[in-house]
Amino acid sequence: MRTTVGIIGAGPAGLLLARLLHNAGIDSVVLETRDRPYVEQRQRAGILEQGTVDVLREAGAAARMDRDGIPHDGIELRFDRRRHRVDFPALTGGRSVMVYAQTEVCKDLIALQLAAGGPLLFEAEALAVEGAESESPRVRFRHQGREDVLECDYVVGCDGSWGVARKAVPADVSRVFERTYPFGWLGILADVPPSHDELVYARHDRGFALLSMRSPTVTRAYLQVPAGTDAADWGDEEIWDELDRRLETDDPAWTLKRGPITSKSVTPMRSHVHEPMRHGRVFLAGDAAHIVPPTGAKGLNLAVGDVVTFARALVEYRETGSDARLEAYSATCLRRVWQAERFSYAMTTMLHRAPEATPFDDRIQLAQLDRITTARSAETDLAESYTGFPLD
Amino acid sequence: MRTTVGIIGAGPAGLLLARLLHNAGIDSVVLETRDRPYVEQRQRAGILEQGTVDVLREAGAAARMDRDGIPHDGIELRFDRRRHRVDFPALTGGRSVMVYAQTEVCKDLIALQLAAGGPLLFEAEALAVEGAESESPRVRFRHQGREDVLECDYVVGCDGSWGVARKAVPADVSRVFERTYPFGWLGILADVPPSHDELVYARHDRGFALLSMRSPTVTRAYLQVPAGTDAADWGDEEIWDELDRRLETDDPAWTLKRGPITSKSVTPMRSHVHEPMRHGRVFLAGDAAHIVPPTGAKGLNLAVGDVVTFARALVEYRETGSDARLEAYSATCLRRVWQAERFSYAMTTMLHRAPEATPFDDRIQLAQLDRITTARSAETDLAESYTGFPLD
Repeated sequence: MRTTVGIIGAGPAGLLLARLLHNAGIDSVVLETRDRPYVEQRQRAGILEQGTVDVLREAGAAARMDRDGIPHDGIELRFDRRRHRVDFPALTGGRSVMVYAQTEVCKDLIALQLAAGGPLLFEAEALAVEGAESESPRVRFRHQGREDVLECDYVVGCDGSWGVARKAVPADVSRVFERTYPFGWLGILADVPPSHDELVYARHDRGFALLSMRSPTVTRAYLQVPAGTDAADWGDEEIWDELDRRLETDDPAWTLKRGPITSKSVTPMRSHVHEPMRHGRVFLAGDAAHIVPPTGAKGLNLAVGDVVTFARALVEYRETGSDARLEAYSATCLRRVWQAERFSYAMTTMLHRAPEATPFDDRIQLAQLDRITTARSAETDLAESYTGFPLD
Repeated sequence: MRTTVGIIGAGPAGLLLARLLHNAGIDSVVLETRDRPYVEQRQRAGILEQGTVDVLREAGAAARMDRDGIPHDGIELRFDRRRHRVDFPALTGGRSVMVYAQTEVCKDLIALQLAAGGPLLFEAEALAVEGAESESPRVRFRHQGREDVLECDYVVGCDGSWGVARKAVPADVSRVFERTYPFGWLGILADVPPSHDELVYARHDRGFALLSMRSPTVTRAYLQVPAGTDAADWGDEEIWDELDRRLETDDPAWTLKRGPITSKSVTPMRSHVHEPMRHGRVFLAGDAAHIVPPTGAKGLNLAVGDVVTFARALVEYRETGSDARLEAYSATCLRRVWQAERFSYAMTTMLHRAPEATPFDDRIQLAQLDRITTARSAETDLAESYTGFPLD
């Protein structure tokens, strides 16, 4: 099998890349280890930055998002019993975000890909990427019980942090940057309308809480829990009680709406960057190159940024013969990646209570929140970072 | 002996307070453990925020500062061989800072105090503060070999972190917030004109460096060193070599001017806040209540803020009968104090290399600096914080 761009992984990065290339008249093949129902059901992120929304619209993949997505013009910061709204458009010259689940983005892109007859192979497990330094890199993969080879001009690894693409970067040129956190998020889905119409990020002495939503009838909520916590250890009422405590406020209008919990899981938190993001003709995108803790909702959006950068660079090369942007791929992406890593780390550190936190650390967190909620410069910095860094 | 306001400590806070009260027609007595030459010679901070400059002018204590001080409209951030200037007035609507040594501020205020016949007792060691909860607190002190008592309406402790005033706050109502850092600053004075006309804050893999000045002919410079370092362990050439390395840049116009080093000392670094800052009629100001690491030059300026808040509150009480501002003294000061603690901690953390720093931490520092030097919001946040928080 032969194609111009071999894409490993049918997550949002791989699927969007296939769409962007298709729209530019460049052929590609997507290989995905899992089957279609699995890909269409895995629960992940749900906040699309302005830039991501724009890209999906330009790619012609936004019809259902524009119908069912929920535009959000701000978030609430809750701390010290206070409520403060950060108004994104007012602070950023009109930018905002959209609540639309990653799994829905995937469904939309899969439907488009298959409708266009684009090659998308489920249950096709990439085994190795070879010839990164040659003109024709190859992906060896197993599909329907037999091994096959995908011959490419370029390979883009969108196969996550445990994928094979990363191994195409030799150990002697790669560097890993990592931080793990001594806590994770216990996340729930519940059949009850969200208690607030925007996301609520709460800093509390008992730990962080986040109130979010999946739809007008489904609440998504998270509690900071110690690393290694088993979700089964938390009873439903215990979760609601703890959310109530951490979301406490002096505002008498506030109430937390409770409902049946339909899903419960714990996500570990880490920061991770793999440099460089390109070796020869193999390019890494999304989780294959970097992980952020979920605070700040950057993961999906960074993956989108990577594939947009790759697609634009390849189009430029084919139109002008200049490979400058392809050559700059890693540096271009990493600058944005490190800004997202910085922001995710800062939000995580400001809002979570570390097990070893001292009273001094608590006061610094409150002073940071006090600064953000009283100084327009600091609040703008947050709003710009949250709604997203420019794509290039 | 009897007075309205008993002031312990003839550092900049105590001396300025005496001046502010004198100007408002309120009598005070200043007690200082050390002799005058000692007070007039100890080397401390040297950056006056806009608000401090304004207060000294309003107090009629700015004649020499306005002649010999060096107005600074910005600082330079140096990292990753890059140079970036932060333009304070452009970012803050006209605010800036003044380089004028704390020791000179003290000389000016002592001269004014003595010229006005204001009681200022050197070698008068405060032994204890009594009756904080009564209408007439007292300072027991020793002067010229005998013990005496200063009867007051109010006592203001400007006697530093080892002073006696803090002990007037009972242990069961006080809380201490603290952080120590595993490094300190090796500071030098050198008889050579400054190599740059503004301060240079350098982040380097070998550690932080700061290039400052005392006058047009005297360079002040600092190197991050491990906690517990003995200044005598560093040879003069070794210091210049290390400054050269940490200040490295791709700008060919840069050269570090070397000259004879006349003073060498190591300052430990810590963050410390003592709450509350008032108990009954005893008020704490400056280092008696809080310490900041020197990164960001907040210590002297915070002390000035405290005594301005006290003086304004006392004047309001005498003019209107309302003690609301006196009652709010601790809360008013602490809000500003914690902003300064936040800023000093953030600058310290962004620019110093901790012994346990990981490659991830290094990249986060560079991403923070990249953000500040490319996003006007983040740069404004820094400029506003550096030039100072409003006094009230």
